[in-house]
Amino acid sequence: MTTKAIEWLDNELRILDQSKLPHQQIFIDLSDYQDVVSAIKTMQIRGAPAIGIAAAYGIALGAQKIEAENRTQFFDEFGKILEAFATSRPTAANLFRAIDRMKKAATGNNVSEIKRTLIDEAKQIHQDEIEATTKLSQLGAELIKDGFTILTHCNAGPLATAGYGTALGVIKAAKEQGKKISVIATETRPLLQGARLTAWELKQADIPVTLITDSMAGYFMSQGKINCVIVGADRIAANGDIANKIGTYTLAVLAKENSIPFYVACPTSTIDPSLSSGAEIPIEERSPEEVTHIQGIPIAPEGINAANPAFDITPHKYITAIITEKGIIREPFAFASQ
Amino acid sequence: MTTKAIEWLDNELRILDQSKLPHQQIFIDLSDYQDVVSAIKTMQIRGAPAIGIAAAYGIALGAQKIEAENRTQFFDEFGKILEAFATSRPTAANLFRAIDRMKKAATGNNVSEIKRTLIDEAKQIHQDEIEATTKLSQLGAELIKDGFTILTHCNAGPLATAGYGTALGVIKAAKEQGKKISVIATETRPLLQGARLTAWELKQADIPVTLITDSMAGYFMSQGKINCVIVGADRIAANGDIANKIGTYTLAVLAKENSIPFYVACPTSTIDPSLSSGAEIPIEERSPEEVTHIQGIPIAPEGINAANPAFDITPHKYITAIITEKGIIREPFAFASQ
Repeated sequence: MTTKAIEWLDNELRILDQSKLPHQQIFIDLSDYQDVVSAIKTMQIRGAPAIGIAAAYGIALGAQKIEAENRTQFFDEFGKILEAFATSRPTAANLFRAIDRMKKAATGNNVSEIKRTLIDEAKQIHQDEIEATTKLSQLGAELIKDGFTILTHCNAGPLATAGYGTALGVIKAAKEQGKKISVIATETRPLLQGARLTAWELKQADIPVTLITDSMAGYFMSQGKINCVIVGADRIAANGDIANKIGTYTLAVLAKENSIPFYVACPTSTIDPSLSSGAEIPIEERSPEEVTHIQGIPIAPEGINAANPAFDITPHKYITAIITEKGIIREPFAFASQ
Repeated sequence: MTTKAIEWLDNELRILDQSKLPHQQIFIDLSDYQDVVSAIKTMQIRGAPAIGIAAAYGIALGAQKIEAENRTQFFDEFGKILEAFATSRPTAANLFRAIDRMKKAATGNNVSEIKRTLIDEAKQIHQDEIEATTKLSQLGAELIKDGFTILTHCNAGPLATAGYGTALGVIKAAKEQGKKISVIATETRPLLQGARLTAWELKQADIPVTLITDSMAGYFMSQGKINCVIVGADRIAANGDIANKIGTYTLAVLAKENSIPFYVACPTSTIDPSLSSGAEIPIEERSPEEVTHIQGIPIAPEGINAANPAFDITPHKYITAIITEKGIIREPFAFASQ
């Protein structure tokens, strides 16, 4: 993967606009932190780890421009920046983990030193996620046998992680180990991350992929065509319940019904041990227009009511294992604060 | 419902082009049976009962134009017409039931008499389906309680049946009984019959409807927001296994997992007792372009491989009841030839 989803250029953040892929590869250079907030909200940057990394750089970017005569003035402004990112999207744990790390890193003898430290910390968060996704992919690849057909949902590849990938990282690592594998990718309505991003990344990685609509996954499972399901995650509660892209719960239920292993791959930065179960994870409700329109084209009668929860909760009982950089974790899940 | 999906005009068949709804209401007058075959293949006419009715009229239309000097010549040509319809689409039982009825009806002292008989039989098939869908809707409405939110998939309304509707017929009848109900409609990728047709028909019938993507059904079930699921069917085997629009199996599994009743509504012309189980029902594989494109717009990388099974099989163990004009049937299902 040579296309960088997020790249730090001194005092600018270069992002690949994921909302335009695969038909247009457009890079945007952001120099204002509010533009980074906006890119997260509009999903030009998406995927839980990538959101965390972008927020970290965005916070560093915002901090550089604070004109403060003393630490008190600086932290007043800095608090507003943190708040802007904290309210950009509600579900991804990595976002809040990154904000927390940036907040704690804001130390130094003077404002200039704090500003430098924040850039270093953002780079470190990015580096940590690259290492974590690379490591978990290596570990997870052990679960993939030669000849496997793997079902995945949404996009959990390099674009989503600004690293090696999580679900797609495991798949890529299995291929690099010489295993002959193929992937069935759900298109992932409403925003079609599977059709637009996963299909594109797998094609680039030379891994055979078949695109299906979300409604077809059950059919292929019932036909014995799927050996395992691997997805990413946006947040994991202490008991192992996960929030992930809407439709994940459905795939987990179908996998259980058809005795197919269901794996979740994510860095430990996705785990939020402060929540006891998935019921406490906030689910983002996005604009109904994402459902009533596809790429701007209306597909339903004008004025029709639509719902658009962006995530759902998969209870831990459906999850065979959670693949992290610290190991492959199975039931009973009990994540504790680190 | 005043918009007629199929209307017989002497020696012409007027159809509402369902592929253009809801944004365009275009009626097409077909005078050549091959155009009727084509309208079925391209899904300008769709829905199992409507396909059967259209085929019956199409066969009658074709028969009128046969220039035969004797019965042998007539039946040679007539056989070709039957064959053209029999190979138009593979899954809907109603199509083959209609063809069989038309074949048996082709009797008379001379060619002119046979031609007249065929028009009468096509009209009778249409009338029978109107009566069956009206009756089954009345019966099925008893299962719907005041205050219910009903999930439906694809389109099984007046458009699909050229009658009162099956799944939507039950819903309409419940409303006519004065029950306050609402519907959650899945968009039904790839061809979006839920977004385009079901949402449109429910809006016309003044029944509150919320449109969701196919991937959201599990979320709403797990949240306790769905009281029952009702779908139509394209073919039912002797043991009660059903073929219906791709995604139906998934909804049935989710309904069972969440202890939600799962109902199938269809006229008995959908039942094919010659098949012992769903495994024998042929599943149509349609063009991959329906998946890689939405309304002609590409949504995936060029050249990507895609699968497009149009139906799936829901085993009878997931079905709470099958609603027909002859009654509400529950396990053990055992349909016999009539």
